[in-house]
Amino acid sequence: MQTAAAADRWSRRRAEKRRRLDGIRHLATGAVLRSDAIVPALEALIGPGDRVVLEGNNQKQADFLSRALSQVDARKVHDIHLIMPSVSRPEHLDVFERGIARKLDFAFAGPQSLRISQLLQDGAMEVGAIHTYIELYARLYVDLIPNIVLVAGYSADRQGNLYTGPSTEDTPALVEAAAFHDGIVIAQVNEIVDDVADLARVDVPGDWIDLVVQADRPFFIEPLFTRDPRHITPMQVLMAMMAIRGVYERHNVQSLNHGIGFNTAAIELILPTYGEKLGLKGKICRHWTLNPHPTLIPAIESGWVESVHCFGGELGMEAYVAARPDIFFTGRDGSLRSNRALCQLAGQYAVDLFIGSTLQMDGLANSSTVTRGRLAGFGGAPNMGHDPRGRRHPTPAWLDLIEGDDPLSRGRKLVVQVVETFQAGGRPCIVESLDAVQVGRESGMPLAPIMIYGDDVTHVLTEEGIAYLYKAGSLDERKSMIAAVSGVTPVGLTHDPKRTDDLRRRGLVALPEDLGVHRHEATRSLLAAKSVADLVTWSDGLYDPPAKFRSW
Amino acid sequence: MQTAAAADRWSRRRAEKRRRLDGIRHLATGAVLRSDAIVPALEALIGPGDRVVLEGNNQKQADFLSRALSQVDARKVHDIHLIMPSVSRPEHLDVFERGIARKLDFAFAGPQSLRISQLLQDGAMEVGAIHTYIELYARLYVDLIPNIVLVAGYSADRQGNLYTGPSTEDTPALVEAAAFHDGIVIAQVNEIVDDVADLARVDVPGDWIDLVVQADRPFFIEPLFTRDPRHITPMQVLMAMMAIRGVYERHNVQSLNHGIGFNTAAIELILPTYGEKLGLKGKICRHWTLNPHPTLIPAIESGWVESVHCFGGELGMEAYVAARPDIFFTGRDGSLRSNRALCQLAGQYAVDLFIGSTLQMDGLANSSTVTRGRLAGFGGAPNMGHDPRGRRHPTPAWLDLIEGDDPLSRGRKLVVQVVETFQAGGRPCIVESLDAVQVGRESGMPLAPIMIYGDDVTHVLTEEGIAYLYKAGSLDERKSMIAAVSGVTPVGLTHDPKRTDDLRRRGLVALPEDLGVHRHEATRSLLAAKSVADLVTWSDGLYDPPAKFRSW
Repeated sequence: MQTAAAADRWSRRRAEKRRRLDGIRHLATGAVLRSDAIVPALEALIGPGDRVVLEGNNQKQADFLSRALSQVDARKVHDIHLIMPSVSRPEHLDVFERGIARKLDFAFAGPQSLRISQLLQDGAMEVGAIHTYIELYARLYVDLIPNIVLVAGYSADRQGNLYTGPSTEDTPALVEAAAFHDGIVIAQVNEIVDDVADLARVDVPGDWIDLVVQADRPFFIEPLFTRDPRHITPMQVLMAMMAIRGVYERHNVQSLNHGIGFNTAAIELILPTYGEKLGLKGKICRHWTLNPHPTLIPAIESGWVESVHCFGGELGMEAYVAARPDIFFTGRDGSLRSNRALCQLAGQYAVDLFIGSTLQMDGLANSSTVTRGRLAGFGGAPNMGHDPRGRRHPTPAWLDLIEGDDPLSRGRKLVVQVVETFQAGGRPCIVESLDAVQVGRESGMPLAPIMIYGDDVTHVLTEEGIAYLYKAGSLDERKSMIAAVSGVTPVGLTHDPKRTDDLRRRGLVALPEDLGVHRHEATRSLLAAKSVADLVTWSDGLYDPPAKFRSW
Repeated sequence: MQTAAAADRWSRRRAEKRRRLDGIRHLATGAVLRSDAIVPALEALIGPGDRVVLEGNNQKQADFLSRALSQVDARKVHDIHLIMPSVSRPEHLDVFERGIARKLDFAFAGPQSLRISQLLQDGAMEVGAIHTYIELYARLYVDLIPNIVLVAGYSADRQGNLYTGPSTEDTPALVEAAAFHDGIVIAQVNEIVDDVADLARVDVPGDWIDLVVQADRPFFIEPLFTRDPRHITPMQVLMAMMAIRGVYERHNVQSLNHGIGFNTAAIELILPTYGEKLGLKGKICRHWTLNPHPTLIPAIESGWVESVHCFGGELGMEAYVAARPDIFFTGRDGSLRSNRALCQLAGQYAVDLFIGSTLQMDGLANSSTVTRGRLAGFGGAPNMGHDPRGRRHPTPAWLDLIEGDDPLSRGRKLVVQVVETFQAGGRPCIVESLDAVQVGRESGMPLAPIMIYGDDVTHVLTEEGIAYLYKAGSLDERKSMIAAVSGVTPVGLTHDPKRTDDLRRRGLVALPEDLGVHRHEATRSLLAAKSVADLVTWSDGLYDPPAKFRSW
């Protein structure tokens, strides 16, 4: 039936993959690539213009491979289209300066955001789009199907079976796109073992991986989700108290995602004190989707937390997580299994609430962490911080946000934006126009890079009070509710205090006293742990903080 | 540091898993469970009240395991909480009648929907919630973490490495939840081989699976996505022409998902004729997320389709898909790799458009396939048919739906609802109130089971014309736009023809003539294949339709 020519016409990717792998057979023993041959191997395996996925991840970095990629001969490998969840290391951008890469699609670029802006201005880089993490994974299966995927793990056997370690993160989602579309997958590992039985566990089957290579040193990983309790202020404690009484308790929040920051760390740390006193243990905050925040340890130890599913791991939390398998997802080896794609799904479709802080919010609750001159990207916040309208199953909290009695109404995810009215230094955080609007214009982006849109925000929480935005009857009312909790910022000053009284009476805005929150109680003494050392004690010595968080 | 008591307190699930597996060691050789011992094994492995995930999938069924489950002694195994993507076989409900199961969480229940309603009325079943597929997967990682997961595959080796065959579907998402939280995973397979080298490929690592058992017969699978071109009507051809001109071409749609039905089959089948004549090949519809619809074969063969990622497989399409690896995602064995969780992600976050037909829509474009006396569930349509507000990357089609020039606006996914104004038999499909509203009330559901909400719908397409709902300036205008294309249904009759002229002039509504679509061209002769036999011919004999679709 099928002629050879017809088969050729429809299997070009497969033939090309075979051709390239044949070209480096002398540099490998089976699936094991010689470490000292990584540069010539990449030169043979990557073609000009290829789509190359590089695991620059939120935490885990395929840095041996990225350093090697930056050393290839740009006459052989050039104009590649680099696809990266997170652009975080200098060599990720060196490849653009050297002409090896031409186009970038990415989700996040914290430390390298300034340099990306410069490369764009210099014409040395073209940006496809800035995504959230899951959008980027999704496109790997649709219109950004990769030719090459470069990832990192702890160890592999000689057949390519991969153990990622606790930070599995994006690896499976990145690998699958190439493994099942005749792309080439290369994994760097810290160690190669002989047999699958010698691996701690298998996170990705060897079947999906073409080549493994031992890195010159263990992959780089960053403790992004650790917040030192010493830096939590009494004002943050006050806001945490308001969150617990005015949001979690009021709406019966069972499952949730905390963004990263001192505001949410404060909430985590007063659950075992303030939350306990209110008799809320076992009644709220039982199921979590978040990285293993060290500041969650006291709540776990005092029995608040039934389960935690993680996007990624966190340096120092390995032994603690491994000793709490009823709470965390762990593998046969006993250590954490994280999975960013699944945790993003869980955070969108299975939790009642997202709460996160922002540095800048406008009078309609639009917010962004983008500031001038930096293209920082989106990461995962927009996915957590929106109302997933494809959801159909109800929970008490989700249903509680329905106003009125239309049978065609639907519940809403609680999206809580936490913002202190002023930053240190006296700059207002609640502003008339976001910096992001100007950044978008100046960078030639089709739309302003908004992190969380105001129309998805259900609650704004400041040190002044809570605006229950989902109850707003009009855009004008919404504005005045936000202004009512905006203090003496320009937005707050537009507000008529008499209107606040009316909004409070109608339950649209609540001040601490309306919630039974006593300002005088809002001191650091409510924090179940006041330092990283306290967290270590709570953990029974299992938490092993990175050096930069140690003061002892 | 850790005492044994502390370890016990935090590893109850692990200890219980070990205890149960130890209890059936005499029924297994390593990971291979004796087929004739499946009933006593389930009795020993499942405890009363357990959360049990059963792969009743959209197509693939773990039916050996579900039949065995329905035979366990209800004094030993009772009141289990059954979690199933799709409830489709009689024994799925027998377990409720026998008291083995008590509570059900599910996503879809086509053929068993009537019986579920009866069981609920009789008090023999409690329904947790009705979900979409990905919501259900998401909850497996949050508040529905399973104790037991029962899945199906083609083959496994003696270490439990699993080859699912082309319908990988939900299996990885279901297995991971138990494998990484000390749950027990059992896979039924058609064949057990000695070694991983004897497997076609590995879809799930053996590490994640506790027991494999050979089924008494190959798992059941249904060809749900096959539509016979013979049943496509000229009216459906007309609507397909309007979709191509008035939606795909107009908005520059590059990537898309087609729901199942004759309307979308008609679109697929006129791409190589009508679409070709319009010069649109290579300009629209290049990337697809959908099951391998046989009616897509002519478009693939004539070069319209660059890639297809699949939720599941389709019976009869195995050899065709395997021979088109540049288009489809395939594994090392050459056959399809589908993945419902990833394809749902792709369908939400990476495609420009969803288009699907419905049997009933109201005057605000809310729609549901729910009819009286049946609890059919949601499946995946609500996830495809909503605007994923967490999306941030732009595409031309997504941007094209922005009205006005607010820098804080965002693009929209195109959600196109196709509806013929009347069903065969003269019942209007466009109605004043959905049956779903009454069903919701009668079943005691907290909300009506709406499949796609009107406020997510951007276009309504009937045989009368297209209403460009995203352009509506008000709810009232939206209503009149829908009425303008609702023909002589009760909703259509409310409309003032003079207003239609105004709506047409302003581009809010388009009739076929406004789109350059000639009604006289709308005949079956435009269909690239007019029968299943034609599809086989197009496929070069590779498509092997199931018997019920063969007339020869």
